[in-house]
Parts: sequence; C-alpha cells; structure tokens
Amino acid sequence: MSSILIADLNACSRDDFVAALGNVFEYSPWIAEQATLARPFDGVQQLFDAMKTVVDQAAPELRLALIKGHPDLANKAQRAAGLTAESSAEQNGAGLDRLSDAEFEAFERVNSAYRTKFGIPYIVCARRHTRNSILRDFEHRLPNDTATEVQNSIDEIYRIAALRVAELVVSEDRLDVFGRLSTHVLDAHSGRPAAGVAIELVELSDLGISRVVTRTITNADGRTDQPLIHHRPVPIGCYELTFSVGPYFAGRQVATSNPPFLDQIPLRFSVSEPESHLHVPLLVTPWSYATYRGS
Amino acid sequence: MSSILIADLNACSRDDFVAALGNVFEYSPWIAEQATLARPFDGVQQLFDAMKTVVDQAAPELRLALIKGHPDLANKAQRAAGLTAESSAEQNGAGLDRLSDAEFEAFERVNSAYRTKFGIPYIVCARRHTRNSILRDFEHRLPNDTATEVQNSIDEIYRIAALRVAELVVSEDRLDVFGRLSTHVLDAHSGRPAAGVAIELVELSDLGISRVVTRTITNADGRTDQPLIHHRPVPIGCYELTFSVGPYFAGRQVATSNPPFLDQIPLRFSVSEPESHLHVPLLVTPWSYATYRGS
Amino acid sequence: MSSILIADLNACSRDDFVAALGNVFEYSPWIAEQATLARPFDGVQQLFDAMKTVVDQAAPELRLALIKGHPDLANKAQRAAGLTAESSAEQNGAGLDRLSDAEFEAFERVNSAYRTKFGIPYIVCARRHTRNSILRDFEHRLPNDTATEVQNSIDEIYRIAALRVAELVVSEDRLDVFGRLSTHVLDAHSGRPAAGVAIELVELSDLGISRVVTRTITNADGRTDQPLIHHRPVPIGCYELTFSVGPYFAGRQVATSNPPFLDQIPLRFSVSEPESHLHVPLLVTPWSYATYRGS
Amino acid sequence: MSSILIADLNACSRDDFVAALGNVFEYSPWIAEQATLARPFDGVQQLFDAMKTVVDQAAPELRLALIKGHPDLANKAQRAAGLTAESSAEQNGAGLDRLSDAEFEAFERVNSAYRTKFGIPYIVCARRHTRNSILRDFEHRLPNDTATEVQNSIDEIYRIAALRVAELVVSEDRLDVFGRLSTHVLDAHSGRPAAGVAIELVELSDLGISRVVTRTITNADGRTDQPLIHHRPVPIGCYELTFSVGPYFAGRQVATSNPPFLDQIPLRFSVSEPESHLHVPLLVTPWSYATYRGS
Repeated sequence: MSSILIADLNACSRDDFVAALGNVFEYSPWIAEQATLARPFDGVQQLFDAMKTVVDQAAPELRLALIKGHPDLANKAQRAAGLTAESSAEQNGAGLDRLSDAEFEAFERVNSAYRTKFGIPYIVCARRHTRNSILRDFEHRLPNDTATEVQNSIDEIYRIAALRVAELVVSEDRLDVFGRLSTHVLDAHSGRPAAGVAIELVELSDLGISRVVTRTITNADGRTDQPLIHHRPVPIGCYELTFSVGPYFAGRQVATSNPPFLDQIPLRFSVSEPESHLHVPLLVTPWSYATYRGS
Repeated sequence: MSSILIADLNACSRDDFVAALGNVFEYSPWIAEQATLARPFDGVQQLFDAMKTVVDQAAPELRLALIKGHPDLANKAQRAAGLTAESSAEQNGAGLDRLSDAEFEAFERVNSAYRTKFGIPYIVCARRHTRNSILRDFEHRLPNDTATEVQNSIDEIYRIAALRVAELVVSEDRLDVFGRLSTHVLDAHSGRPAAGVAIELVELSDLGISRVVTRTITNADGRTDQPLIHHRPVPIGCYELTFSVGPYFAGRQVATSNPPFLDQIPLRFSVSEPESHLHVPLLVTPWSYATYRGS
Repeated sequence: MSSILIADLNACSRDDFVAALGNVFEYSPWIAEQATLARPFDGVQQLFDAMKTVVDQAAPELRLALIKGHPDLANKAQRAAGLTAESSAEQNGAGLDRLSDAEFEAFERVNSAYRTKFGIPYIVCARRHTRNSILRDFEHRLPNDTATEVQNSIDEIYRIAALRVAELVVSEDRLDVFGRLSTHVLDAHSGRPAAGVAIELVELSDLGISRVVTRTITNADGRTDQPLIHHRPVPIGCYELTFSVGPYFAGRQVATSNPPFLDQIPLRFSVSEPESHLHVPLLVTPWSYATYRGS
Repeated sequence: MSSILIADLNACSRDDFVAALGNVFEYSPWIAEQATLARPFDGVQQLFDAMKTVVDQAAPELRLALIKGHPDLANKAQRAAGLTAESSAEQNGAGLDRLSDAEFEAFERVNSAYRTKFGIPYIVCARRHTRNSILRDFEHRLPNDTATEVQNSIDEIYRIAALRVAELVVSEDRLDVFGRLSTHVLDAHSGRPAAGVAIELVELSDLGISRVVTRTITNADGRTDQPLIHHRPVPIGCYELTFSVGPYFAGRQVATSNPPFLDQIPLRFSVSEPESHLHVPLLVTPWSYATYRGS
C-alpha cells in the first residue's frame, strides 16, 4: 500500500477513493464507498470517524457480515487459501506464522471454542498484541454474552482499521494509534550516560519460544538512536530487556569480581497500553542497579 | 559419615583416628595416620593444618599419587566402577550426575585435554563450583605449566579436604569454608517488609538446562526463614533469583496495570567468593525496583 | 534511681516496695502501695498492669488529683520551685530546658490555653516526643472535649509510668516501651559497606534551632557500633541524618568532580512510632544515592 | 544592552561596531576597534575569536591595563563610585550586593591579599560562580605565581567577555557559554510522573545565609515548565533542591504515617561545570527515594 494525501482523497473520484481505502475494513469496500459522501475531510481523524459512522449506522446484518469476513488468527487452511495482504502482514507481524506446536494448538482451540459459542471468528487487532496476550484476552472474552462480543469485535475492527488508515493516509493531524518503548542506561559508577552497552529486547511467550524483537547498542547519551519500538503500537505482552553491563564495565577497566557480580541484566516487564510511551531506564553500577516505569 | 568431637579425636587410638579421618584425602589414609603424631589439637583448624603439613612435607611422588588418586569429574565409566562415597556426593551436589549432552561432551573434552597435557586428572573442589564455573576455570588453567597445575591440584585437594573435615569434626572453632546467600524483599509501596513473596533460585548454565536450587517464600520480615544457601560454600557461578511480585501486590489489592508492569522479577548475578556472605535484596514497588550486592 | 529485681520487689516489705516504686506515678505513692496487694508478680508487665489497674479502679477525684499533680511542660516558675527528679530529667531529655524564645512562648501559650479549657495541665510523655511534636499534638488535642482529654491525660501518664518502671525494674520480660533508630551505608561504587563515614543526627524544630542528637562514624560493616537511638523511645519528630560522603570517597581516591557532586548528604525524615525499629540506610555512589524506610 | 545581528555588525561603520561591542571588555573599547579589521565574521564564534586574538597579541602593558581596569568583587567604595552597568549586573547576579557581614569581610580579605601579592585585582567571571565558589577559588589561586595569575585573569576576562558577547550578538551559531539545571519527579508509588510537587532551589553559603534561586512546581510530566536554571551558566557552588512530597502524597490520599515519613526532601549537590546540562531527578514513594546525576 502506498500513502496518499488527505487533500488528494478529498479531490479524487469516488472510484479512486474506494480503490485507496477499500481494504481498510476487511472485504468491505462499501464502507469507504459510503464515506465518500462525508467529504471533504479536515484531516485523517475526521476521515476515520466518517468511516466508523458508516459502520455504526449500518444494518445489523451488514455489521455481522463485516465481522464474519475476518479470518481466524493463525489458521493454516485459511493461510493456504490466501488472506488479504493486510491481514497477512498483520498476523505475521505478531509472529502468528511462526508458532510453536503448543501455541498452534492453543490458537486452534481458541478459534474453535469462540466460533462454537458465538458463531463468529475471534477477532483481535493483532498489531496491538503478542501471542501471549491474544490467548490471555480470549480467556477474558469467552465468558461474555454474544452482544458484548459483537461489540468487542467491532471495537477490534476499528483498531485494525485505524492502523491501516494511519499508514495509508498522510495528514497534518494523526490518529492516536502509535506508542513507543524506549530505554536509557545511566552509569552511576562514573556519573555518565553509559555508551556502547549492547541491548536485546525479547518478547516472552508462555507456550512458545522467546522472540527477539530488536538488538541495539547505546549511544553517547546512553540512549538508543531509535526507540526500541516506535511508529506502531507497542504490543501488549511480556518482555525481557537485557543489558550487557559486564562487557561495558570491563571495557572501562572498572575493577569487579571474577566472574563479575553483574554481567547480563534482564529487566522483565509487561506492556499494557500499546498507544503510550513507556520508558524503561537502567541505572547501574557494577554492584547495583535500579529501574522504573518512566514516561 | 557421622560427626566426631575434637576431644575424642585427641583421645582415641591411632586406628580409630584413621578410621574417622582416613577418607578426608581421597584414597590416602596415610595422611591421617601421620597427622596423629601432631596430637593433641586445640581445635579443628589446628587439626586441618597438621594434615596439610603432612601433605606439604610428603615426597613429590606421594603427592603425585595423591593427585592421581582423584577421579575425573563427571566420568561415566568411573561412576559405573564406583567412586568413594565422598566424591560421589560432592559431584552429585554440583549436578555432575545430571548433565545435558552438551555439558557431558564438554566435561569429556576437558578431562581428556587436561590429562593429555599434564598427565593428571583435572581436579576441582566441586562443592565450591557450578557446572559452568568448572568449565570456565578449565579455560584459565589449561594454558598453565605443569608445576603450576600440580600446585593448583594440591590447593583444590586442600579445599576438598577442608570441607570434609568441617563436616566430620565438631569443635568450638570452625574452618572458614562456608558461605551464605541471602535475600530480603522490601515493599517501598507500603514501606513494609514484603511478606509472602514466592522466590525461586536457579543456577544458570551455558550449555545445559537451568537447575532450581531452592524455592521459598518470604516471612513477615521480608526475609526467608533460612538463607537461600548456607552451611556450605556458595558455588561459584551464575544465578537467577526470581521474585513473584505480581501475585504479591495483587494480594494486597494494589492497583496496577493489566497485565501488571512487574510480575516475575529476575535478578541475575554471579557468585565469585564461595566462603563469603552475599546478600541480594530487592526494593520494589509495582512500578520500580532496585537491588545491590549487600553483605 | 537504681534498679531493682522483680524477685526483690515480690519479697520486700510494703514500705520498701513503695520506697522503690512510689515515684512511678507523679506525687502518687498510693498507687504503688495498693499494687503491693497484687504481689507476687511474674514479671514487669504483670507489675505494671497491676499499677494501671489501681489507677483504672480509683475514684474519679483521685484520678483527677493524679492528673493535676503533673507539672506544666517547660514552665520556668515551676522549674525554679523544683520538679521531681524524674520530671526534670524527662523534660530536659526532650530539650525543654533549652528552648528558643519562640518555642518558650509557644509552650506558655499551649499550657495556658489547655488549662483554661480543661482545668488540668497539658500532659505529654516527654520522652516519646520532640519539641515540635509536643506542640503539634496540642493542636490535635485542644478541640477535644474534657472527657476525652481526661482519658488522654491518663494514657500519657501510663506511658510516663511505663518508662519509669522499665528503667527501674529488672525482669526477664520487658515492657514494650523502647524503639530503635539505625542506619547503614552501602558504597555501591565499590560494592562494599562504607566504613569511616561521619554521620550526624539532628532533631529539627519549626520554631527553634536544630539540636544535634548524636555524631558517629560507620564501622567496617557500614553500620554504627551503637544504633543512633536505642534503649529508649525514638522521639516522635522530624530529623535530618547527614552523611559525609565527600570525604569518604576522597579518602578512597575515587575520581569525582571539583567540588564533588555529593559531599554532605542529608536525609530528612519523621518518626511516628517511638516504640518501633526504624532503619534508614544510605546506598551511595559519588553520583547517586537512595534511601528507604527499612526495619 | 540591546541585541544586534551578526550581519549588521559586519555591515555597520567602525564607530557603530565599537559602540555596540566596546564594553565587552571592561573599559577597553580598543579591543572592539581592532577586531573590526577582521570583518566579516561568519558568526559569533568567529567574532569572539577575533576579539580574543586582539587581546592575545596585545603588548603586555596593554594586557595588564586591561586586567587592572577590572573592579574588585563586592567592594563597597567602588560600588559607591560606580561600576560599569555590565559589572554591576554581573556582581549583583551572583549576590555580591547582598553579602552577610562575614562574607563581606571574607571578600575584603581576599581582594586585599590578592592585590598585595599580585598587584592586580582578583578577577573572577561572577556569572559562573556563587559566593562560596569565589572564595574557594581564591584559596586555590593565591599560592600561584604572578605569571600564572596574569594568565588566569585573562582567562576569566575571556569568560566575562564571552558571556557579554553571547547576550549582545544574534547569530545562527552560539558560543558554548550556557548550561542548564533541570529536575524531574517520578512517583514510583503510582508509576506516573508526579505533578504539582512544589520545588525550591537554594544556593547554600558557608558564611552567609542561603539564597533562594527559584521556586516552582512540577507539571503533568513531573518536570518544570522551565529548567531551574538556563540561558546562562549554572553557577559553580553548592545547592539544595527541596521537594514537598508530603503535601503531594497527602493530596493523592496515599496512606502514610503521621507525621509522614517523608515530607520535605532535600537533595544537596554541587555544580562544577557551569556550561553543562545537569539533571537531578527524584524517584520517590512515601517511604523511599533515589536521585542521581543525570544529563
């Protein structure tokens, strides 16, 4: 998908508009089509609100069809038959194409139990989640009644659509759909930012193997040149951030024990607000460290 | 092995003395035998020094025989043929009877390379070590010359013997052969010691699987009723101490995020001085924590 | 006052008993006299409870006389006329003999306002308080009704009496009337307890000048040989504990800035529970520090 | 003094140039005059370097005259007779017009001892200093020989001049003469920035009374809207930054002790690098806090 200016969306033909935004809602170009009637849009938030209004005001059977148009998560048969490019990228981004056997079985069980109870697919905005959090959310949602889950499905569809719109449309305003995860290493032994500390961010999984999200190294400010995660939601889930402080202090000729008391420092924490800025700093000496949820 | 009073060792017959202490040095009752000549002993330190003096003053070929009398570490054939009860317990205590395949191969390689170069077995006081540190020490010792390694072997044999003596002999004085690892959880959210926090101590291994050393729970003082490791050397190596703070704060109805920012907090650290007291406390809120090497 | 064994108090004559304990309640030997009837006592707690029971069961006018027998706090005229030795020592211990002019006026105002409203002296167990906390408590008590303040007076008299008994009587059990204030300095730059750090504890005052409670220096364990305050209640109030870390790190040849970022570190905190153990540690590098309420 | 564009300084007449910059060096318009020969200047750094070159290449007697043209610090007679507007503002900014008697005597002694030994006034760039650091620097400089102090005087004059130029001249580049002192309060009890915390920054003085530098309050980010000190050098000296955390936590209905364990938290630290960015954060709960030198 290439990006398009809000001004162009306001000026273009209805067909071009639908061509640009028809896939924002899975298999439902009628939503973009009807949204053209609300043109012109001041910005992307107004555009997105117009599309939501179309869905909000649609007949119940249309809304149900929209829901049912969504694929299962991590369903091999559906993947083989072909997903939309958007769904495929979103599911793969959450690692749903690289599940362990135990995770695969868990997803099958979840999809099946959910469909059996509610008659609709289990819909989650995959880009806001990790494997773990998708499965955990299911446990919270399964006991609900059908009306609640129809609404939950619509809400998740809005989140999926908002992210698709945010990446498609260029506008001065922005949808509030991205978060950020950052870190900072302060060397309290020398009273300076710690430069050159290797950092690894890993997504933990209860059922499968851990997945490396990113590896980087601190710069002269003790920060990373880019946030660990940015320009996207920070997926809800459990992470471990590991700092190679042993090599760092060894490189500075700081006297320590052998082996060093602290070598690889893991900080394990969970993300609960994908659209927020979460800062997880490390204040460290060869003999002590501290961290906190910063912002 | 049952314990014996220093007074009884001073008063008993030479045969009974050797019966009691003959296994302190592997397959070398002659050391205990000659040490009887130095009786009476004020205490266990004087007794142990007398035994060391016997070894220090022994002819080189006797010392070499003492060294060669020691088994390889984690050698299956030797285990099948039978180790002394002491060696077996000491090796098992370090987990050498439950190695992963990769560790097994590493130990075979180490034993063989060491024997090939020096003509003697690779001797390490296993109770002062973990699987990892035994293999790491080897890397430091292999480049040495033979004279250095003969002395290193004797030093390790003294450490082995000191621990055997410390457990056999009851005396007012003590050999300085035991260390201690302890922890303490302070809840800085409530300003109180954190009671009821589940704690797990795991020995990490580069080549094998982690091994649970102990599981326990904090008492009303935020401490554990017993130190995590005590009445023995704290094995040199890398550990992870994990605190279940998520359930702790949930049990106190403290408002947090969902999932909680902090749930299982791992502190990863190394032990370098087996005979010291190492204190690794946790100062924690639902949003921050700190640790340091205390004493 | 010299100390006396509980066994001797059980065995001695009624006159000797009263001679020993007659001053426990200010100008009221009749309380000790009646308490002899409850002999023998298992220990000091039982003895003290018996004395309280005498007061609890005394006629209202006797209780009022007991209350009225107490001196004002920091009253110059009464001091000139002579206080009991006990009252004098207790008031002086709280610094009531060295008030600033502003404090003096405040105490006069308090005594007078209290007497005017309730017809009795304002009674506080001075050993549990600082100048500040006595004046603050007054603000809380003045709005009360007379019945409440009669009871509050009796409660304070019990606290005064309990401390006098605790210092007079030797018994295996102890009255729970003493607290403790301690500290500990951990040098996170070297990973060791900080030895040789000069420490000053000061009692702060809103109206007067600060008063040095104690000056000391840390030992090899980073602790003080004696707790900062012990064998007595820790007076309710606000304190500043100052650590000379600049000289400490300079003495260890640790490179810092000029002047050093941290030189004299003040920790300002309040005591609210005089009978508890309060631990206020300092975890410090030349560039950072942390403290917490420990126990 | 009003500001002037570098382009205008390049284009204006020699007289206008001298009119604009004649006071950059105290009573020495000849320096600006000669610097006009080096026009045009790319920016303010090049301009300032040109002025320094004039001084560097001036005859020794001219340089000495420049030095001798400077006033004493805190000299009442000279103040009465009139200082340049620049000197007056600079000295007042450092509080030299509001000295305690003891400080006044100290400055008199310093000026006199320095003049007696070296025959020149004791010159310090007052905007980079506090009362304390001026007096401390004197102790370091008095033992020097005359050549060293002539050079030190020139260096201080350059610092004074650089600050005057930086405030006079508008250019795309900047002289590196300003620093910054900032803070940040993170509430580790709630895991959020602490908003609404009153903060007071005080300059401490060994001989005089403390001087409030600024009072402010944290915003929604736990920061202050403006840095505590900025757009100027951060004066070398000792400071105390006090945070009103008692009222903050009380306002959030957090249960604490009475009186609260922590109420006013003082952080006492020194500034050694006036042109750097110094960040002094507070990480706090009702029962614990930590700080560190950040950047």
